[in-house]
Amino acid sequence: MVFQSKIKTIHWDNNTSEIIDQRLLPYEFKTINIKTCEEMYIAIKDMIIRGAPAIGIAGAHGITLAAIELSKKFPSKDEFLKELNKKAQHLKSSRPTAVNLMWAIDKQMNLAQSTRGSINEITAALIENAIKMENEDIEINKKIGDYGASIVPKGAVILTHCNAGALATVGYGTALGVIRSAFAKDPTIKVFADETRPRQQGARLTTWELTQDGIPTTLITDGMCSYFMSKGMIDMVVVGADRIASNGDSANKIGTYTVAIAAKYHNIPFYIAAPTSTIDISIKTGKEIPIEERSHEEVTHINGDWICAKDVDIINPGFDVTPNELITGIITEKGILKPDFKESIKRINKL
Amino acid sequence: MVFQSKIKTIHWDNNTSEIIDQRLLPYEFKTINIKTCEEMYIAIKDMIIRGAPAIGIAGAHGITLAAIELSKKFPSKDEFLKELNKKAQHLKSSRPTAVNLMWAIDKQMNLAQSTRGSINEITAALIENAIKMENEDIEINKKIGDYGASIVPKGAVILTHCNAGALATVGYGTALGVIRSAFAKDPTIKVFADETRPRQQGARLTTWELTQDGIPTTLITDGMCSYFMSKGMIDMVVVGADRIASNGDSANKIGTYTVAIAAKYHNIPFYIAAPTSTIDISIKTGKEIPIEERSHEEVTHINGDWICAKDVDIINPGFDVTPNELITGIITEKGILKPDFKESIKRINKL
Repeated sequence: MVFQSKIKTIHWDNNTSEIIDQRLLPYEFKTINIKTCEEMYIAIKDMIIRGAPAIGIAGAHGITLAAIELSKKFPSKDEFLKELNKKAQHLKSSRPTAVNLMWAIDKQMNLAQSTRGSINEITAALIENAIKMENEDIEINKKIGDYGASIVPKGAVILTHCNAGALATVGYGTALGVIRSAFAKDPTIKVFADETRPRQQGARLTTWELTQDGIPTTLITDGMCSYFMSKGMIDMVVVGADRIASNGDSANKIGTYTVAIAAKYHNIPFYIAAPTSTIDISIKTGKEIPIEERSHEEVTHINGDWICAKDVDIINPGFDVTPNELITGIITEKGILKPDFKESIKRINKL
Repeated sequence: MVFQSKIKTIHWDNNTSEIIDQRLLPYEFKTINIKTCEEMYIAIKDMIIRGAPAIGIAGAHGITLAAIELSKKFPSKDEFLKELNKKAQHLKSSRPTAVNLMWAIDKQMNLAQSTRGSINEITAALIENAIKMENEDIEINKKIGDYGASIVPKGAVILTHCNAGALATVGYGTALGVIRSAFAKDPTIKVFADETRPRQQGARLTTWELTQDGIPTTLITDGMCSYFMSKGMIDMVVVGADRIASNGDSANKIGTYTVAIAAKYHNIPFYIAAPTSTIDISIKTGKEIPIEERSHEEVTHINGDWICAKDVDIINPGFDVTPNELITGIITEKGILKPDFKESIKRINKL
């Protein structure tokens, strides 16, 4: 992969999934070649690749790698499918909150189960579909970007949290896709990026990604958002999502909910930007979304150094749920959903 | 100074102000001997000592050091007082937001100007008063603690932001004084401490200070507060203040305002704990409080390492103002002020 300003986070090439190692950014740009399903499990779990749409495609690639591995070991199609299903369940357990992972793995498993023909034909179909899903992700993001750009006021300052960018998708981004599309039309827009502790995806990834594209970006710490809102310095908030319930309640990176409350208090529009694959119609409300608990070191350490007293307690939820009442709209590739979200989500599902 | 669990942040001893170097905590406990007014200016500006009440006493000590220096250079009392006043103005400019600094320096300057007798007698009076103010600060904090403890529910979990502890005062603390007094009565209370980026006083100072005293403390990142509030895991918020306007609007460390908005949204009581010297009756509302803009490195670096892309923009306000409508009460050494704060502040000023 040649590095260009058009970031490609994950790319299928010659029976290998090539991914950007996001743990090293913004200090070093390096890609890793993932050759087995287990390597992909670790890459997702350790957040070498992260972001709901990106780990969806990582899941699709992971199952494809599993099929290539299993096709060499299991001549019986039944056994092959049984083993593939085991790998699928394992891969799904790498991260619990983002539903795109489950969605993409299920899509590949349905294809494997419904494909008539030999194991090699199934594997070939999975490879073809993995590449198709990868390309579709960018197309979906560009549509999200176009819909989103249509509601960004001229010269707006947009606050975003975490990284819902090219690095959270195959390329282009969801929330940052909206920003890219808006900036292409109006180069006077500006971005405020929340640092997003504990893992600082805003500081490490969003500032890197946006400044690469020449989009003016101000980094702020997570507690500062209300200050700038009260000064009239933020016009709208756009963030990604990891799972959206049938009623519009949206799980996203921890801290998003706090930003949403602050936006509501200041009457600033708060938008979610996400592909419809992020919507989980199997759950009624955000209360049903499992929240991943991550390691204590993410809070107690930065760049390998302690930042606090050693005998402190830690609880480290990776995500929070923003209730639908705080959300102005959900920008998808099929259009912008508005409240009542229960109704608008039902309608869009029929499209 | 022998280090004991009873922290003493600043202490006058033998014509020297001995202060804890807070830049080194929680990694190293070290004190510094401040021998000149200029050294004190730098100690305040560089946040070797910080916290509104502590820098008040640092100001009182600084003027006293100036008097000792000037008494050796200026035999004329008029010139001595003129030069002392210049030093006072300079020392006041070290940090603009906390009014306690201005209050304490004015108190010493009024004493210098009103003391009849020789330069040596003035200097002796300043030394005596510096020690008196130092001791009074701890007494005031214990009264704040007692008033505050009376409203902490049994087994409460208290969220605090930044460090309004022994390290922000001479000893004991304001917000953490309330926690200390509450814990002495009820050892089942617990504390959640916000990390408080950019300078991480919550992580570096509050967790260190509270765990020294055996008070159970959970460190959370700044964006997490709403998540824990929504789960019913936080019962009240208590924070310090750097300046309180006549109407109760309260400036405190950046991020406090965001916590206050989140508390309001979840119907959780939000208290300020501060000595009455923090109240600035010369200003009507929080809009008149000057907000210090601090260096960009505080945001872009942690422990000396970059955490973001290098060509990002930074705005780094050191404080924000929580409007009175978000404040349940202001805990002072004279009692707990309740809304309407304009009225209750007027009343307390007459005590």
